Amino acid sequence: MPRTLTVAGAQTGPIARDESRAAVVRRLIALLREAHAGGARLVVFPELALTTFFPRWWLEDQAEIDAFFEREMPGPDTRPLFEEAARLGVGFYLGYAELVEHGGIARRFNTTVLVDAAGRIIGRYRKVHLPGHRDFLPDRPYQHLEKKYFEPGDLGFPVRRAFDANVGMCICNDRRWPETYRVMGLQDVELVLVGYNTPVPSVMTPQYDHLAAFHNHLSMQAGAYQNSCFVVGVAKAGREEGSDLLAGSCIVAPSGEIIAQASTEGDEVILATCRLDLCAINKRTTFNFAAHRRTEHYGLITERTGALPPPG
Amino acid sequence: MPRTLTVAGAQTGPIARDESRAAVVRRLIALLREAHAGGARLVVFPELALTTFFPRWWLEDQAEIDAFFEREMPGPDTRPLFEEAARLGVGFYLGYAELVEHGGIARRFNTTVLVDAAGRIIGRYRKVHLPGHRDFLPDRPYQHLEKKYFEPGDLGFPVRRAFDANVGMCICNDRRWPETYRVMGLQDVELVLVGYNTPVPSVMTPQYDHLAAFHNHLSMQAGAYQNSCFVVGVAKAGREEGSDLLAGSCIVAPSGEIIAQASTEGDEVILATCRLDLCAINKRTTFNFAAHRRTEHYGLITERTGALPPPG
Repeated sequence: MPRTLTVAGAQTGPIARDESRAAVVRRLIALLREAHAGGARLVVFPELALTTFFPRWWLEDQAEIDAFFEREMPGPDTRPLFEEAARLGVGFYLGYAELVEHGGIARRFNTTVLVDAAGRIIGRYRKVHLPGHRDFLPDRPYQHLEKKYFEPGDLGFPVRRAFDANVGMCICNDRRWPETYRVMGLQDVELVLVGYNTPVPSVMTPQYDHLAAFHNHLSMQAGAYQNSCFVVGVAKAGREEGSDLLAGSCIVAPSGEIIAQASTEGDEVILATCRLDLCAINKRTTFNFAAHRRTEHYGLITERTGALPPPG
Repeated sequence: MPRTLTVAGAQTGPIARDESRAAVVRRLIALLREAHAGGARLVVFPELALTTFFPRWWLEDQAEIDAFFEREMPGPDTRPLFEEAARLGVGFYLGYAELVEHGGIARRFNTTVLVDAAGRIIGRYRKVHLPGHRDFLPDRPYQHLEKKYFEPGDLGFPVRRAFDANVGMCICNDRRWPETYRVMGLQDVELVLVGYNTPVPSVMTPQYDHLAAFHNHLSMQAGAYQNSCFVVGVAKAGREEGSDLLAGSCIVAPSGEIIAQASTEGDEVILATCRLDLCAINKRTTFNFAAHRRTEHYGLITERTGALPPPG
């Protein structure tokens, strides 16, 4: 009996700044129901799925900033999503801005939770690779201030045994970094979940705006192939508060092939039945890590953070 | 004045088992001259460019095996290539099977040398990621015995300042491993050179034979994008001793785009003028390693060789 998992990507269209959490959660519940009707046992929502992508704005009033954050998960506004998922018996993966108090200190993370079919949180991830910048850039039409609003994640790249699979968690910019997939690949990951908000035009590299969709897929396809796992990438998409966000949500097979892809920039469910045993093909051969990796030559990856040019 | 380097990929067609070194070197010289006429300052030849791809055969006679190896570089047969390159003022990158004696012990590597425009060897690399297997597989039409005939390289992934660029060296299967590019990326690599022999059908993963060209390009495009460097990938291609070798030699820009590609399975020169300053776009922004890498979460990459599943 082959192991299979039908997974859904629940892409959302834009979320306006004045859209209430309750209204957003109603949209997520509608997507959840559609995914369940399509056979999904696990539904992947975007990064920061409950609000507009606020790091585009330079905000100074801490109360205004914190209004984008959740102090509890589930809270009053998000509980209906948890309850409906448990009623349907569907798991989900949800991104949100997390505000926690540690010893009286407020800490803010770009976070996702993995929720099982009974509505219990069974995994948590805090974004490690925060893109963008900390300071106000006066010559840009908007900002990308994740480094200002969040601190880097402190939970590594977790892989959980859930849904009869090894499930790995990451967020948005993490998907461009091969270290992300490899740390999970070394935990035998079979299914990587990633939500994203990708502004185009980019604040940092407008030269490459025309390649944004290519870079998005290239990174996830290479990560899937090189670690022989499925990748589910889910966007918040469309024109949001005057800024465009990349769509292109997709499900990638361990071959690196895209097996499902969104065709709109709005709320849209994509589905794939992942034949998890396909992961074994390359995990046992081309990417049999135990047989082929040579860690004695990888030292710089952990010893050195930034690049240093060669002598001469 | 922008830094540019016109580089050539000198793909070769098949080399028969009974083709002499002198005959092969004449083919390489013809490609070198064509590349030079096209403006190339650096010419990249394939992996094991002097012989047929002998790891497809199970050989037991050590003298027969060693006939595929070079004991000196340059030697009598290869010296004409070095001399012609120096006469033209062109550098090159050449793969061959290397036999060295260390303290009376014979050691065999799958090796490349980087040669400057004066014909001097300025860099040497020995293949780290040896694919295939050590033992005879009786149910296969041919073998892939690199692990039998070579030992893993002992020189890391070197990057040299040469040709007014930071030039990195790797071979064939190395290109599928993100560690390869990242170790060079941390040395600020701008141009990665890689020759390959890729048998199709594959001994190990016949399920993916129809994707061989896709996987070849996917790996190099991701490596180029994620480290913001050019990659020059050069095949030995075509039907060789009854076995097909993948073509698809290409030059990839730091954007991940293929900017030159071979269109045959034979001896063929591809050319691109690499605008080396393009590397800075993402090295300073999206892939500014110093700003964004989080080495505290990468530990498994060097601590663990093989994959271990998560608890549960």
